[in-house]
Amino acid sequence: MKQLQQSIMALYNDLKNIAKNNAASESITLKLSELHTLCSEVLNALDIVELKSQVEGKRYFAFSIGNKISRAINKDLYISDINQIQNTIYQIVSQQFSNTSPEQITKALYSMAISFCGIIDLFKDRDQKTPGTYFEIFACHWFAMMLEIQPKKEIDVLNLDKETKLPTDYIFDLGKNRPKIHLPIKTSTRERVIQVWAHQRVLDGVYGVGRFLGMSVCLSETKVDKTKLEVVEICLPDQWQVYQMFIAQMKRIYYLDVPYRYYLLNNVFPPINVRTFGDFFYEVANLKQGDMEF
Amino acid sequence: MKQLQQSIMALYNDLKNIAKNNAASESITLKLSELHTLCSEVLNALDIVELKSQVEGKRYFAFSIGNKISRAINKDLYISDINQIQNTIYQIVSQQFSNTSPEQITKALYSMAISFCGIIDLFKDRDQKTPGTYFEIFACHWFAMMLEIQPKKEIDVLNLDKETKLPTDYIFDLGKNRPKIHLPIKTSTRERVIQVWAHQRVLDGVYGVGRFLGMSVCLSETKVDKTKLEVVEICLPDQWQVYQMFIAQMKRIYYLDVPYRYYLLNNVFPPINVRTFGDFFYEVANLKQGDMEF
Repeated sequence: MKQLQQSIMALYNDLKNIAKNNAASESITLKLSELHTLCSEVLNALDIVELKSQVEGKRYFAFSIGNKISRAINKDLYISDINQIQNTIYQIVSQQFSNTSPEQITKALYSMAISFCGIIDLFKDRDQKTPGTYFEIFACHWFAMMLEIQPKKEIDVLNLDKETKLPTDYIFDLGKNRPKIHLPIKTSTRERVIQVWAHQRVLDGVYGVGRFLGMSVCLSETKVDKTKLEVVEICLPDQWQVYQMFIAQMKRIYYLDVPYRYYLLNNVFPPINVRTFGDFFYEVANLKQGDMEF
Repeated sequence: MKQLQQSIMALYNDLKNIAKNNAASESITLKLSELHTLCSEVLNALDIVELKSQVEGKRYFAFSIGNKISRAINKDLYISDINQIQNTIYQIVSQQFSNTSPEQITKALYSMAISFCGIIDLFKDRDQKTPGTYFEIFACHWFAMMLEIQPKKEIDVLNLDKETKLPTDYIFDLGKNRPKIHLPIKTSTRERVIQVWAHQRVLDGVYGVGRFLGMSVCLSETKVDKTKLEVVEICLPDQWQVYQMFIAQMKRIYYLDVPYRYYLLNNVFPPINVRTFGDFFYEVANLKQGDMEF
């Protein structure tokens, strides 16, 4: 187990190094798959704890070692069969999207991401940074691969006599006369989510409204009460609507485990397009062609 | 020592209860003084560790127990003499501001606040919530007392067919035809500071620019490397300027331990009024009278 754990951390460090210069690289797909294989090996040997779900329509469990438990894992999204996941990744990489579906892609990517995050929950103490960094590399990779663009993490703010580099979330530049993409990536958002809209506001202010499409990828919004073994979903839909009306307009919020209360925001005012991450792979072609109505 | 620690936590809990309904109450001044007396008693018995200051023009030390050390304490602001502090508090409460000075008030309030926070650093593990809550009650008290207003922590957002309560930082309502005050309070800001401007933006959007004056109170921006025993100040002045230009305009940022790099923002474009918290007590009269040029 100790050796597996070391191999997992070594692969994670490899990923960090490769992603810096080539987020779209095929070797990241390979490393992510390899990492998932190791994580599965660990997880298959662990006990499972059923969690009491307070989230309507969703069932959750957790992996456990001794008296420690992992974050909540969605039973209906989690796939333990590695071959099934590898097959979906193959369809993505070879761009054979008619052979798979948004649901299948969401499940496969959810299973990969939650496996690594769950393992860090069990092997490290209160480490939120490692799952956060992993998930940034993970979600950014699929964007970079599909768009065939290496993202940046800072942009110039030119303002008369003042010149500043503004650190940002990932920025994808689709080229002249096409929108650029501003992509914050979070394992969960909670009260920190206002940052997503505020960064979008800065980009709108500096470059003009519409130059940057704000899109976000999130893993889930679950929270586990480790004593009661209960799962809740922390959602602030009213606040999202206030931000969407008064700070800036986000174009898409993709989730791997979509909270139903956020999904409802698609159909009310102000509409916020909340979708599964699998949907991204089916709408990215329009985005890449610079479809302004996207 | 154990008993002192229990008395400190009991007083802290009292403070929390009183502040909910009466942030301006004289009994809060009394409890804060009593709490500070107990904290001083503890701190006087502790060892002091000299810290290597990487902050130009500032000297820092920390209190220590065993191999644990407190946050950094500014040598030139910290007053160990309780009587001197009590005397300053008396001048504030009795509104005899000609008998004291902004510097003296800043030092006295800095010493009170940093004493409690330093003790929590030593007695609790990685507890940021207790110092944060304490400092909110502490800074809000002086605002509430000087303005003679009980603040609110949420406001209505009315928007045609939609009605939402928006949770906010402290809001002080000075009455009709006067600006209201939006007061975020933080022990330190770091990268979370964008929230301050984003909340101001929401208020500007919902109620119109200028209805709410954004003012903030912060303790300090120091960070201690506990291995090297080194202090640095984490400042992001370029980012503050981008936020001030493109998100919203903050009217004042008060500090107890003002970072020099933020102080410089007073004199460049876009100007951001960064002052010592002691200055607040000398300019609050204009604010209270509804001076729109404030």
